[in-house]
Amino acid sequence: MLYDGNAPTGMMLIGTEYVRGTQASVQGVAPATGERIEPDFAGATREEVKRACQLSAAAAPLYQAVPLEQRARFLDTIADNIEALGAPLVARAMLESGLTEARLTGERGRTANQLRMFARVIRDGGFLDTRIDPAQPDRQPLPRVDLRLRNVALGPVAVFGASNFPLAFSVAGGDTASALAAGCPVVVKAHSAHPGTSAMVGQAVADAVASCDMPEGVFSLLYGSGSEIGQALVADPRIKAVGFTGSRRGGLALVQTAQQRSEPIPVYAEMSAINPVLLFPEALKARAAEIGQAFAGALQLGAGQFCTNPGILFAVDGPELDEFVAAAKAALEQSPAQVMLTPGIHTAYTDAVEHTAGLEGAHIVARGQPGDGPNQCQSVLIETTLAAFQQQPAFLEELFGAASVLVRLPSIEALPEALEKVEGQLTIALHLEKGDYAAVRNVLPMLEARAGRLLVNGFGTGVEVSDAMVHGGPFPATSDGRTTSVGTLAIRRFLRPVSYQDFPPELLAEELHESNPLGVPRLYNGKLQLSD
Amino acid sequence: MLYDGNAPTGMMLIGTEYVRGTQASVQGVAPATGERIEPDFAGATREEVKRACQLSAAAAPLYQAVPLEQRARFLDTIADNIEALGAPLVARAMLESGLTEARLTGERGRTANQLRMFARVIRDGGFLDTRIDPAQPDRQPLPRVDLRLRNVALGPVAVFGASNFPLAFSVAGGDTASALAAGCPVVVKAHSAHPGTSAMVGQAVADAVASCDMPEGVFSLLYGSGSEIGQALVADPRIKAVGFTGSRRGGLALVQTAQQRSEPIPVYAEMSAINPVLLFPEALKARAAEIGQAFAGALQLGAGQFCTNPGILFAVDGPELDEFVAAAKAALEQSPAQVMLTPGIHTAYTDAVEHTAGLEGAHIVARGQPGDGPNQCQSVLIETTLAAFQQQPAFLEELFGAASVLVRLPSIEALPEALEKVEGQLTIALHLEKGDYAAVRNVLPMLEARAGRLLVNGFGTGVEVSDAMVHGGPFPATSDGRTTSVGTLAIRRFLRPVSYQDFPPELLAEELHESNPLGVPRLYNGKLQLSD
Repeated sequence: MLYDGNAPTGMMLIGTEYVRGTQASVQGVAPATGERIEPDFAGATREEVKRACQLSAAAAPLYQAVPLEQRARFLDTIADNIEALGAPLVARAMLESGLTEARLTGERGRTANQLRMFARVIRDGGFLDTRIDPAQPDRQPLPRVDLRLRNVALGPVAVFGASNFPLAFSVAGGDTASALAAGCPVVVKAHSAHPGTSAMVGQAVADAVASCDMPEGVFSLLYGSGSEIGQALVADPRIKAVGFTGSRRGGLALVQTAQQRSEPIPVYAEMSAINPVLLFPEALKARAAEIGQAFAGALQLGAGQFCTNPGILFAVDGPELDEFVAAAKAALEQSPAQVMLTPGIHTAYTDAVEHTAGLEGAHIVARGQPGDGPNQCQSVLIETTLAAFQQQPAFLEELFGAASVLVRLPSIEALPEALEKVEGQLTIALHLEKGDYAAVRNVLPMLEARAGRLLVNGFGTGVEVSDAMVHGGPFPATSDGRTTSVGTLAIRRFLRPVSYQDFPPELLAEELHESNPLGVPRLYNGKLQLSD
Repeated sequence: MLYDGNAPTGMMLIGTEYVRGTQASVQGVAPATGERIEPDFAGATREEVKRACQLSAAAAPLYQAVPLEQRARFLDTIADNIEALGAPLVARAMLESGLTEARLTGERGRTANQLRMFARVIRDGGFLDTRIDPAQPDRQPLPRVDLRLRNVALGPVAVFGASNFPLAFSVAGGDTASALAAGCPVVVKAHSAHPGTSAMVGQAVADAVASCDMPEGVFSLLYGSGSEIGQALVADPRIKAVGFTGSRRGGLALVQTAQQRSEPIPVYAEMSAINPVLLFPEALKARAAEIGQAFAGALQLGAGQFCTNPGILFAVDGPELDEFVAAAKAALEQSPAQVMLTPGIHTAYTDAVEHTAGLEGAHIVARGQPGDGPNQCQSVLIETTLAAFQQQPAFLEELFGAASVLVRLPSIEALPEALEKVEGQLTIALHLEKGDYAAVRNVLPMLEARAGRLLVNGFGTGVEVSDAMVHGGPFPATSDGRTTSVGTLAIRRFLRPVSYQDFPPELLAEELHESNPLGVPRLYNGKLQLSD
């Protein structure tokens, strides 16, 4: 077992076998106290990585052939099993991450709902992208063959969880859910910051594999200290795609390994973003203080440890902006410090704030309350000028935590040149009123080219799990700006189209049969047909 | 002008400006005679590459904002203009490529129809993948925001044509057509093997840009000797994606350049394939001679210079296979040699045939007639054993031309281990009868994992341009096995999703308006709605 009902056992899961690792171990640390948490999770050998990948490859054709309804029930069952873990799961995640009970209870709901959403996606069948061009034997000058297209699963997927979402972006998070929905087996490398939470969720998946009679190897869970096991996983020739959420450095290292394989594979790494916030003049005139207060709230949500945290603001200098700053400052100064996810993240945050605040032309205008325990995040608002911003690319580096940089523009006409420097982002938020529309239209194409999600009069921190969500964006926000890691479109990352020409029905998958027995939506002879 | 109505001028097109290059020049060679063809096409400078890319980047937001109907008319007009070039276009392409009039007339039709097909795709609007999750202000525990997703164009695309399809995979071929349909400006690096054909088609596009009032920079055409200009194009920071059809070495060089940019970009390189043909036992029993004859025809189509040319066969040793070989041999021996596309391709073919036929355990079983002029392709059928095939990966290298390798298997049970060695392919062809279904089912998942298109009782050389076509496949057939370069799905390569949250209607693109004024198909609140 990974979890015996009372506590994580420290074991790994390779196919259906529970194995105790033999390599350097991982141990959770409670960031609120700095204390280590039992048990040890001994790491996998390279041989064990290989075995997990072999089982995954063996499972791939079997799992892809599982009827869609059964595949959907598998995801539903994982969701049920996660919820059935009850309060101990939330307690363990709180202990390991320092996040609050409310936040983790919400995240558990999101994780389960995400699995159920992908179960609906499977049942709907639209993800198969079925297309049928029936034969036209009498076409001139040449007859047309019969062509039937469907998406197939890419094959085994390696998933790396994120420290900041120990449930929703981890063992059974969005990457795993969308890969399993696509028909891909998954090998998870557990995040070392929440090994016990990973074990508990891993057990929920393992139980679903058993009770839903899924092929052995459809899911494995490995531990490993450092990056060796993760790198070995991505380098394994049986792995066909990678899902990752984490740092730019970590993501790019996996991308490099994936590209150096004799068969390069796609890596979907969601890496870093500073999520610009644009405060347009009329919005500031109408409600500078209100926006300032809301900004302080968004900045500090979860100690700022969101990929979509508002890390940089652009606004025109003037009395309205001063009013915004005053309101943000007042709110920040009243805000207590919050525990960060890990000692390493806390140290990196403190260093990065010091570095950015020390850049030429930068100064701190507001700070939250200092912490009174280990690993506490003290919020910070830094200010600078457009000239200083343009000269120092370091302002564009992500400050992971509750810190943000305000860039004062001389005029709204300077906004395009400021945005010119901005790299790919997950989100860009626009605060605006009707009077700002012309100024917004002037930069909208630049914004579309730079972010996966644009939002009006809010902040990017809430990420709805739905059909129309894009949690992605151009490089370096992600390693593949054509995709999203949240929402139903995330399934596309793990699929590829295959065309079947002149196949006898006996050899075709059900979704390609003329009579459409599964009732999937399809493009038939150029016409879209709805599902049943 | 690129083409003055009588002859190509040797100029390039940068935005709307016709420019004579100043660098090392390209000149066409008539492969049938080895003679050089006028005029010289002097190459671009790096500065000119940059200027083309700058104009392309400036055009990008304007072109994307062109109303869909106008964008569709632009593609229709290019198609009309290409047809209006008349017989001189076919004559020039014949002269430069050595391909036949019938083939090039057909290819011209395919090129024009492909553009018109993408015009229909634009008008339909389904490529926008519009998704709307309307706000739910009363949802508990949190209200749902309004989210609207559409695909936007990636931005400027660099296109590299292929020597073997001087029309359908060149200046206004599938890559250009799908990129323009997606809303991306295109910068074409003309293929040096058909510079005059490129100029004529380039003029057809340039005239359409003018008559359809498209923004300057939506299309440029550059010449360059060697790889420097192409590499500079892919390295230019304004280019956001690359379409390429050609050799594995050429494709991988572009992939490497694209990955080394500070912002890596997707490269869609269709590179090399040997397109396995599997002859199942019952099919051989039923019609060995017939298949052998058909194989010889498919092998020699266009002197074997198709990406989908049948380069390797697997079949069980025995009298039926001997019968297949005898029929193929008889057909091949009667076949006259054919002119190849370029002297370089001819030399490479001759060398590769000699190399492969000289591998241990290989021997030539049939040859076509020798040529009586320069650059002629003499067809070849080589045979080997499973053991020799498994020991020498060189059997897997593409023989570009009318050469194929037959691997004799000891039994049908040996097919999986033979396939284990086979890399990603564009096509795999299966010759089968009902009695073979069990054997086919046994390997079908392996085949699906290895090719973009599987076809029964035929050969892959005909590539239908339609909705259900996949002309793509796992690496090394292409650099991105999730895509196709032929058919309507090819447009997806040049799109990325953007989500708009809580946007006022005044700032939303028309396709995202609640009332659906464009009548595009959309996923509304989880329900698929058809287009008007």
